Amino acid sequence: MTTKPQQTACVIGLGSMGFGIAASLLRGGFDVVGCDVSADAMARFEALGGRVAGLPIDAGRDAQIVISVVVNAAQTEAVLFGENGAVTEMGKGGTVLSCATMSPEAARDFERRAQALELLYIDAPISGGATRAAAGELTIMASGAPEAFVSARPALECIATKVYELGDAAGVGAAFKIVNQLLAGVHIAAACEAVTFAKAMDLDIAKVYEVISASAGNSWMFENRVPHILEGDYRPRSAVDIFTKDLGIVSDIARNLKFPTPIASTALQMFVMTAAAGMGRDDDASIARMIANLTGLDLPGLEA
Amino acid sequence: MTTKPQQTACVIGLGSMGFGIAASLLRGGFDVVGCDVSADAMARFEALGGRVAGLPIDAGRDAQIVISVVVNAAQTEAVLFGENGAVTEMGKGGTVLSCATMSPEAARDFERRAQALELLYIDAPISGGATRAAAGELTIMASGAPEAFVSARPALECIATKVYELGDAAGVGAAFKIVNQLLAGVHIAAACEAVTFAKAMDLDIAKVYEVISASAGNSWMFENRVPHILEGDYRPRSAVDIFTKDLGIVSDIARNLKFPTPIASTALQMFVMTAAAGMGRDDDASIARMIANLTGLDLPGLEA
Repeated sequence: MTTKPQQTACVIGLGSMGFGIAASLLRGGFDVVGCDVSADAMARFEALGGRVAGLPIDAGRDAQIVISVVVNAAQTEAVLFGENGAVTEMGKGGTVLSCATMSPEAARDFERRAQALELLYIDAPISGGATRAAAGELTIMASGAPEAFVSARPALECIATKVYELGDAAGVGAAFKIVNQLLAGVHIAAACEAVTFAKAMDLDIAKVYEVISASAGNSWMFENRVPHILEGDYRPRSAVDIFTKDLGIVSDIARNLKFPTPIASTALQMFVMTAAAGMGRDDDASIARMIANLTGLDLPGLEA
Repeated sequence: MTTKPQQTACVIGLGSMGFGIAASLLRGGFDVVGCDVSADAMARFEALGGRVAGLPIDAGRDAQIVISVVVNAAQTEAVLFGENGAVTEMGKGGTVLSCATMSPEAARDFERRAQALELLYIDAPISGGATRAAAGELTIMASGAPEAFVSARPALECIATKVYELGDAAGVGAAFKIVNQLLAGVHIAAACEAVTFAKAMDLDIAKVYEVISASAGNSWMFENRVPHILEGDYRPRSAVDIFTKDLGIVSDIARNLKFPTPIASTALQMFVMTAAAGMGRDDDASIARMIANLTGLDLPGLEA
């Protein structure tokens, strides 16, 4: 056995996913520099033994790998390539791992820009939620050059239990994630529609959950989100705004391809309605609340 | 132990579900009389050791339990209560088990008419498909008077592994099944939309199936139906017309309740479009074929 020198990883974005990723890298023996707009998040990461930097450029300077865990393509562009971006002074041959859900086109653009700087790039959207991020058990739908995977392997092994290598260039990972989000978003909206419809028919919705989650009408999202409705607990595990954004990406791509997506488009409108009603930052099961408010249904946790 | 006299069961409708139910009752020691409009189906049931009758009235005459396994409320009404209906000469105190998916209102109406004839009635929509019907492993979403369940218990134990007793009057079972069908229908349409969208983005759809069925975008229907698309095999395991009917029931109920169901209504339109394109009797994954035909996508099994 040889002892390898400790690698430095930079994690930009210490939200629920990024914090878990940074913590997993620490546990895996990386020297980790975190960066976030929230001083609180940075203080929490320091308390865990991590280093922090106030600007992406400083966080990325010594890193062999920069991991961007922000919300969308615009933020990814800003934190990587913008003024004081994390790759600005990063050494050549380093690797960028980009985790935000975005269009394949944006992912390909970022890969080109990284390659122009002689950096490796992996289009690496993540899935699994905050709990699995914290446990280092994410699923990653990744694509990029083979040498980028070789270079990122130690970091990927710390943060994910399943890394799908879906293609040798950016864009493929993004496209897979978008297909997943189309289904996940539709299934959340359908779960909310079905449970409120059941309530409108005077059914016992706890019993509906029990029966349907064991039947052919089940989905991963039905099983995961309906308990939020039963408990009337709309604290955000994943917010309405996330799917407003992701189904918006589906809609943009599909329109450009001249490809009809009636179901996803209808689901998108239900997320937009829920955001319009002031619940954009609440849990995405809030679609049920929006429907209940509209129709006068008595669900747990609703204000009179 | 006491030896009970052999019970006679009448099964009206020997389609893929009814045949399996009748066969399961035979295996369970019942004397079974089958009845179907198809002479072929009756011949196959005789070959299995069952008795047959050409008219429901004759099939039901000696039965302690009549099980109706037809397609909808109209057929159920005809085979039970119409001219030469199965309950016409059935002995008082017998039990009727009605398996078709229908509105709660129709189920309550049939229960009233059965009770007027001094018969017991169970609203008993079934779920599980032909294979599980043949194995005696159906799921039943049932409601009815407690004495009806006592009386039907031996038959229920032959045909189902899971019998949910959801209420003490007809209508509740029907409502649960309708909620299940709302979700199942939406999930089929969403699976077809997502897989064709993935193909339009040039993804490897077999890989999409592998990745998504292990991710948060999964549903029971995605997992079950997408292989039909991958194989280009649209022989009907469950036909487009079934969900055109069942989502039609959702739409009727919701409109009567003044309850909005945008997702289910959009899915219904996709089934209607597929039926309109001549695929009503084909497998319900044919929504993918309809989309591919519309958009010029190259999917397996499509005619040029």
